[in-house]
Amino acid sequence: MTTSSVCIATYRAYDDKADFHKKAHSIAVGLTVGSWTELPQAKKEEMEKHLGKVVSVAVHEPDDALPGSRYADIAIAYPDLNFSRDLPALLVTVFGKLSMDGRIKLMDLDVSESFASAFPGPKFGLQGVRQLLGVHDRPLLMSIFKSVVGHDLANLKEQFYRQAMGGVDLIKDDEILFENPLTPLEKRVETCMAAARQAEEQTGQKLLYAVNLTGPTSRLADNARRAIAAGANALLFNVLAYGYDVLHELSSDPSISVPIAAHPAMAGAIYPSPHYGMSASLLLGKLMRLSGADLVLFPSPYGSVVMPKAENLAIKEALLQPLHNLRTSLPVPSAGIHPGLVPLILQDFGHEVVVNAGGGIHGHPMGTEAGGSAFRQAIAAAMNGVPLEEAASQVGHAPLKAAIEAWGIKTS
Amino acid sequence: MTTSSVCIATYRAYDDKADFHKKAHSIAVGLTVGSWTELPQAKKEEMEKHLGKVVSVAVHEPDDALPGSRYADIAIAYPDLNFSRDLPALLVTVFGKLSMDGRIKLMDLDVSESFASAFPGPKFGLQGVRQLLGVHDRPLLMSIFKSVVGHDLANLKEQFYRQAMGGVDLIKDDEILFENPLTPLEKRVETCMAAARQAEEQTGQKLLYAVNLTGPTSRLADNARRAIAAGANALLFNVLAYGYDVLHELSSDPSISVPIAAHPAMAGAIYPSPHYGMSASLLLGKLMRLSGADLVLFPSPYGSVVMPKAENLAIKEALLQPLHNLRTSLPVPSAGIHPGLVPLILQDFGHEVVVNAGGGIHGHPMGTEAGGSAFRQAIAAAMNGVPLEEAASQVGHAPLKAAIEAWGIKTS
Repeated sequence: MTTSSVCIATYRAYDDKADFHKKAHSIAVGLTVGSWTELPQAKKEEMEKHLGKVVSVAVHEPDDALPGSRYADIAIAYPDLNFSRDLPALLVTVFGKLSMDGRIKLMDLDVSESFASAFPGPKFGLQGVRQLLGVHDRPLLMSIFKSVVGHDLANLKEQFYRQAMGGVDLIKDDEILFENPLTPLEKRVETCMAAARQAEEQTGQKLLYAVNLTGPTSRLADNARRAIAAGANALLFNVLAYGYDVLHELSSDPSISVPIAAHPAMAGAIYPSPHYGMSASLLLGKLMRLSGADLVLFPSPYGSVVMPKAENLAIKEALLQPLHNLRTSLPVPSAGIHPGLVPLILQDFGHEVVVNAGGGIHGHPMGTEAGGSAFRQAIAAAMNGVPLEEAASQVGHAPLKAAIEAWGIKTS
Repeated sequence: MTTSSVCIATYRAYDDKADFHKKAHSIAVGLTVGSWTELPQAKKEEMEKHLGKVVSVAVHEPDDALPGSRYADIAIAYPDLNFSRDLPALLVTVFGKLSMDGRIKLMDLDVSESFASAFPGPKFGLQGVRQLLGVHDRPLLMSIFKSVVGHDLANLKEQFYRQAMGGVDLIKDDEILFENPLTPLEKRVETCMAAARQAEEQTGQKLLYAVNLTGPTSRLADNARRAIAAGANALLFNVLAYGYDVLHELSSDPSISVPIAAHPAMAGAIYPSPHYGMSASLLLGKLMRLSGADLVLFPSPYGSVVMPKAENLAIKEALLQPLHNLRTSLPVPSAGIHPGLVPLILQDFGHEVVVNAGGGIHGHPMGTEAGGSAFRQAIAAAMNGVPLEEAASQVGHAPLKAAIEAWGIKTS
């Protein structure tokens, strides 16, 4: 680590009157050395390497002078010297006290090479997950259990098998399924993986089952190892309920040898306000990848869960664009997905995406299995440039036809 | 655990048109059993014990029909059967997916006796901290280092000694001081505790030093034990950068035998928006106490950091009012505190409060030591019902006099 190594935080601050340049300076000093002008010259020389620097201040004066609409994008460089190389230290430095200082939102963090070097990132990433599945030439398909709370192992096995037979690549637990007497972790893994093998004999297709990793923080690694020993080949994790550092430690652990899918539970407490919190692309994009998520679920722009499309795409970019030496993470836009959306999803997100559906699979008029088939048919059609209407009329494509009749086709 | 045991979540949801009763029903079903009306009768009987129930829906129709001002307070009861007895499970259940579903804020959580029984809460609490200090008859006084990043042990020792000589009861690290070569954890503890003993020989007064507990999540307990072995008699912890469950595990650990002060770093990403996130009283009040914080810092209503006074007082209530069998946590309203505010602080918060100052001590015209003395004099005056102006003119009260000349007296 050189003394010039810095992490750069970008904020959006709203204020109708503030001198944003002065505010930026006070952040840079206040969150690093504390005070500056009053220091004697000799002390200044000694402290210089710890001093935050204002990188840029872009003030946006509103045309209409509408109260509340004046803001500035402020970038501050924080010397790496000031914090240990972990996310709690970085976040507390750049947005600990500052988060409580009026209308200010943390938009982005550019970490230094030195800081990033402490983060191995996704263990599998996009390519690793594709390799595990042996699928390289199309978007992946994930499905979610219909309902799990209060159901027993036999019910879960049946649900799992139906989903698997429809040709999905990944099946994820519901994020609200915790350790419970009806479907305890190891039994659940054994049962579902048995259903996966049964389906694979029919379909010849591999499948990842992301079992929900839950429990006290200090037992998560053990729980993960127990799940893996029972046959689990992927994990689902509610990252924000535990903290990024917990994901980072799990993903860095060599004994946790399966991909981790990050669930966005609780994220809506942090990203939606224009004035407070953190941007979706930082919260669910860059920080999830830095912490080692192989797949990241986030609200799609198609469902009832509201996120402007620009933010969805910014998350995708944060997961896929070059970031130090880190592997990419697979974007999983979720909620409101049905087969008639597949061409639009591919247009918006490209081919490096996981098409993830719950109701769009289980609610299929011909049943869960046909629900999966309809998605696979839609994906194949979209990859070959065949319009869905045309593909739906082809022999054997009754599932796609029924899906389109039920939910229509959405092209924008 | 009986099947009727429930945790009740209260939300405030904004929507200009929604049928809030329908929305409440869909939350109660959607976040528990998933679907209800379509279940066969036999299955309904089996699933009933897992089903969420709408407790109340209070719709607030705005008088002026201003867009964006219509909201409802919705309370939902979630069966304890559905989640394990840890905060990540509870929070993901009640506000995981729901946090992303439009303008909705989690206002409160009433956990069941059964759920609460898994939480020992504060190990010391208000009374325990008072016992450690031997101070029972007045509000406590805490001070914060002026600046720490880039300073060496000799400097910290000098700062510590000056603060201690002013008669403060607690001294806390800056929350942005992490493990670093200049002032590593154990050396820092040894150095500051030596200064504390030195001061105690002069003042006869006990003192708690809350050293900042930092590092990778899995090493926090070890770091805490190392700090304690080196002499630390309190810890400071950036709870929200790590997660409540981490604090819960630390506070439940019998080997971590000192009080823990929770810092609110990052809280401003979650509480300030009226539409998103969690209420300050839940985030910094009830959940901190449930997780075992002995002292809780939060923004005061007096400084530049903005929090409406009603919210400050709601945090205090959550820390002090009866909550199952949990000890109370000491409220530490912070930022913008000077001696002229002491009577107002006592009026607002009562006597069970920590008066916490940084600039109000170090910025005293006569120096840091006089800064502490001025606060102690203000506290004594306020406890005896003596107006500050009058107390300031008494013999030996030059520090209070100078403080009032510098910062004035604020009575409302």
